[in-house]
Formats: sequence, C-alpha cells, structure tokens
Amino acid sequence: MKREAGNFIHPLALVESLSVGSKTRVWAFAHIMPKARLGRECNVGEHVFIEDGAIVGNRVTLKNGVMVWRGVRLEDDVFVGPGVLFTNDLLPRSPRSPWAKKRYSATSWCLRTQVKKGASLGAGAIIMPGVCIGRFAMVGAGAVVTRNVPDHAQVLGCPAERTGWVSPAGAKLLFDDYGFAVCPITNTHWRVQDNGIRPVASKKKRHC
Amino acid sequence: MKREAGNFIHPLALVESLSVGSKTRVWAFAHIMPKARLGRECNVGEHVFIEDGAIVGNRVTLKNGVMVWRGVRLEDDVFVGPGVLFTNDLLPRSPRSPWAKKRYSATSWCLRTQVKKGASLGAGAIIMPGVCIGRFAMVGAGAVVTRNVPDHAQVLGCPAERTGWVSPAGAKLLFDDYGFAVCPITNTHWRVQDNGIRPVASKKKRHC
Amino acid sequence: MKREAGNFIHPLALVESLSVGSKTRVWAFAHIMPKARLGRECNVGEHVFIEDGAIVGNRVTLKNGVMVWRGVRLEDDVFVGPGVLFTNDLLPRSPRSPWAKKRYSATSWCLRTQVKKGASLGAGAIIMPGVCIGRFAMVGAGAVVTRNVPDHAQVLGCPAERTGWVSPAGAKLLFDDYGFAVCPITNTHWRVQDNGIRPVASKKKRHC
Repeated sequence: MKREAGNFIHPLALVESLSVGSKTRVWAFAHIMPKARLGRECNVGEHVFIEDGAIVGNRVTLKNGVMVWRGVRLEDDVFVGPGVLFTNDLLPRSPRSPWAKKRYSATSWCLRTQVKKGASLGAGAIIMPGVCIGRFAMVGAGAVVTRNVPDHAQVLGCPAERTGWVSPAGAKLLFDDYGFAVCPITNTHWRVQDNGIRPVASKKKRHC
Repeated sequence: MKREAGNFIHPLALVESLSVGSKTRVWAFAHIMPKARLGRECNVGEHVFIEDGAIVGNRVTLKNGVMVWRGVRLEDDVFVGPGVLFTNDLLPRSPRSPWAKKRYSATSWCLRTQVKKGASLGAGAIIMPGVCIGRFAMVGAGAVVTRNVPDHAQVLGCPAERTGWVSPAGAKLLFDDYGFAVCPITNTHWRVQDNGIRPVASKKKRHC
Repeated sequence: MKREAGNFIHPLALVESLSVGSKTRVWAFAHIMPKARLGRECNVGEHVFIEDGAIVGNRVTLKNGVMVWRGVRLEDDVFVGPGVLFTNDLLPRSPRSPWAKKRYSATSWCLRTQVKKGASLGAGAIIMPGVCIGRFAMVGAGAVVTRNVPDHAQVLGCPAERTGWVSPAGAKLLFDDYGFAVCPITNTHWRVQDNGIRPVASKKKRHC
C-alpha cells in the first residue's frame, strides 16, 4: 500500500511508513516507523510512537504520548487514551546485558497484544503483554489489565476487574432485575447471555 | 494579550499562542496551541502539550510530558508532576467511529477540571474528568483522583483517599490530641474546622 | 570524558552532553542535558529526557518517554520500561510560589534514587524519591515503589510488595519445599539466605 492522498502530517512529525491510510492525521513530535501499518481516518496525537511491526486499523484515535510496540494490533475504531502503556515483554531485561543476550537473540520474547474493534482504553491504563481486549470493551483510566477482557466489559482497578457492561456508544448499561438492559445514549436493548451481553433485536422487545 | 517580553522559548519548542505571560519558560518538544492561555513565570517542561481552550495561571510548573487538555484550568502556583494525566471525557470512544459520531457532534462530552491555587499533583497522578482539586491540596504520586479534593487535603491511592492535611509550603501537618496542628516547615498553626483546616492567627495561639 | 566514537544520535535528538559512551544510541525527540552522564552501549528511546546531574551506567535501556532527573543514578544493565516515572522531591510545590521559594533556595529538597545493576522497572512504574532498588530486582508494570527493594526481589502493586524472587536472566524462581530454587531460563540454582537469595554453587548441588 502506498501512502494515500489526503493525509495531514504535521511538519514536526516523522512519518517513515508508506502504509498510512487516507484522511489520517499525524501531529507534532510523533514518529511512525517504516514498517508500521496505519489505517484510514486515524488521529495520531503528539509524541506518539508506532514501532515497526505494529498494526493500527481505521478510525483509530491515539491520544498524545501513546507508544504502539511491535506485537500490538489495534482494530478499527479503537480509542487509546493519553499515556496508555502497551507492553510486549513479560520478563524485561536490558537486552545487551550478559544475562539477557541469549533470550533476546530469538523473537519469542515478544508477545502479541490485541485490542478489538471499537474498544476504549482510558488514560494511563497499562496493558500487560499477551492480553486480548474485547470488542467495545472500556478499560478505565489507570487500570492495569493483566488478563483478557470480554467484549463490552467495563474494567477498572489494579488488577483490572469487571465492573459493568458498556454499549458501542460508550455508555454503561443499566440493568433491570431480569437481566435486560438499555443503553442510555442510544436506547438500544441488551441482555446477558453466555457470560457476556448480546443485543436484543428491536422487534423482540419484552412485553412485560 | 500579546506575548510578553522576557520569555524563554526553547528553539525546539512550538509556541503558537500569543497569550503567554512574561518570564515564562517553555522547553524543547513542548507545544502550546494558538488558543491556550498561559500566565507569567511558568515553567513548561519538555514534551508538554497545552491544548486550545486550556487555561494555566501564573507561576505554574508543568513537569515533562504533561498534557493540559481543553476544559482544564490550572490556577496560580500549581505544580503538575511528570506524567500527570488530565482527562476531559468520561465515556471516551474514537470520535469518528459510527457509534460515537453523534455524541461528539456537540461539545457537552467535554467536562471541566479545575486545580485550585497552590495545589500539587504528584508524578503519574490521573485526574478524572469534572473533578475540582482544592487550594494547596497535594495529590500523591500515582493516585487516581475520582472525586473532588478538599483544600489542603493530602490524597493517595486508587481511588484517592484523604490521608492527611498539608500546609501551603507542602509539609504534612502534625496534629496534637486537640485538633491543633503545626506546619514543620513554616511553624504556622492550624486547626480543624468545617471538615477542613483553617489557619490559627498567631495572636490567638492557644495558651494551654 | 569526551563523546566517544561509534554513537548513533538520531538527527531529531538533542544531545548536549559530551559524556556519552561508545555504541550508545539516542533516538528521536530525546534530550540529554550538558551535565548528564551516560555510559556505553545504552539505548535511549524516543522522547526520553536525561537531566543535568543524572548518572546512567553501561548497557542501560531507557524505553520511550522516560525522564531521568537529577539525583537519579542507574547502574549498569538496568532496564527502564516505557513511561516509568522517577521523582526526586517528596513535597513538591511550584518553586516560584511565595510559599515554596525558601525551600527551593537550597538543594536539600532533591533526594537521591538509585537503581542497582541489572534491575528492571516495568512499564509505568512510579519510583518514590530516595528509594534504592536492589541488583536484578524486577518492579512490575504499574507498581508504586515507596521503599527500598531487596536484590533479586519481584515487587508488584501500589504500594509495591514483594511477590517472589527473580534471577539475573529475569525469570521468577521456582522453589521447592526446602527453600531451594531453580531459574527456569538458565537452570541455575538458588537458596534463601539472610532475607534474600544466594546462588548455590553448581558443585554443591543438593543430592536429595
């Protein structure tokens, strides 16, 4: 893919990758390495760093200071808040130290982290390596995510625990006593099923 | 207000605002947007970002990497430690995603955060949107502030809880059994009143 | 010491110090002040700041966005993860405020922090001022270190507590019921002694 037309690259940004989608904006002091891939209509804040091997989808928002390492994949419509920290190494040592050289001579130290479509990561959240964050999940500011997050889950704290469910619009769902819920922003209906939530088709709305 | 004389702007900083007070220093790789307002005698560390609509008072210290968003107001003499994260959106989603476009078409998503005169925010503190931090309060390093902080309160932890009271000089007050306290730096006297602390006028020092 | 041959300084980095060892690499938007000292074979990530008076040993890795303040000393082979925050002031106030000027007129406010040989600091860890982190210790991502960390200790949480012991290679030691342990990476043997761990010489391996 060639760098598409219609980008905005701030004159003080450093964009080396040719794989940047159309209408994507990159702000000052950000750096996108040659082998990073970035989709369309993204907004890349100041002081962001996207490493070789990182993959970023379409319409993703990266607020200032975010670093997207090799091994990290962000799907479409993801929001990454300011100062969110991704990681890719569970046992980090300085790679040139005599005790660590061997481990870093292969690439198996680098774990893969995935953030699925439409999820949001609040300011300063820390994502441990190898974790998968589900579709439309919302990670609270300052949370430390140590294991997978289900689709639509709201998680908070250190280590992050589930505290509710959220809709694609971002609102926390309000439940009745029967396990049915409504999104206060979009007025869509949801119910608990299989340890997660599912939309209730509008024609099948409960009568009671 | 025009940009006043006597500023120091590092050659690698990007200062677009004309509303920067005298004797303010701005260091490398920092960016102050055109409609941000910044007072006199401030010190703006490297990699700081001040967004359009943010308001910063006089003699404020912003350590490296701080981002001051639209909706955030810092009064005079505030200290913001390195990596402190402000926020202005309680339900963040990527604004160009199909589910979020409507919410971001108005400006009501942007909450206002205020830090009052002389308060300090320790390294890496996270300030939730809409919070007010009182005069001379001290937020501990790494605290996650989820609700208003009283004047002079010291708060720590996640979520931040009050653990003591501090004087304008920054010292934790030492209390006697009668609710009277002294600042170990300035030797001023204080007492508890109305769920807060008040200075004890020097002439009215207790006799017992 | 003059700046040695064989460095890589990115054209967008700002390296003012002449005390930078050979084979050290400094990446974009990083700044090393004139009186900072940096050893050989270091890797200094983007947006890093190293202040006058900071001392960094050989083969140290500083991931993106790390700030090494005056008063901080990092020994050889230290790994500092992305967004780690050092501090040097226990009672921070804006130094130009009327209440704080006196305290900042001397230098005693600046505490010394030390990270010993081979230790690792995980992403977003916050290190309180005056703390000493032992040799080969491993501080977990997001930990808030409020007191000294023993050699080889793994610490996690806020405030950071010891959760295990790690080898120089970075692996968590696996203990048997007799207080003997093995490193799963290097197969070296260790035992608990004097509130810490010591290597067991290979000739002295237990027979039972």
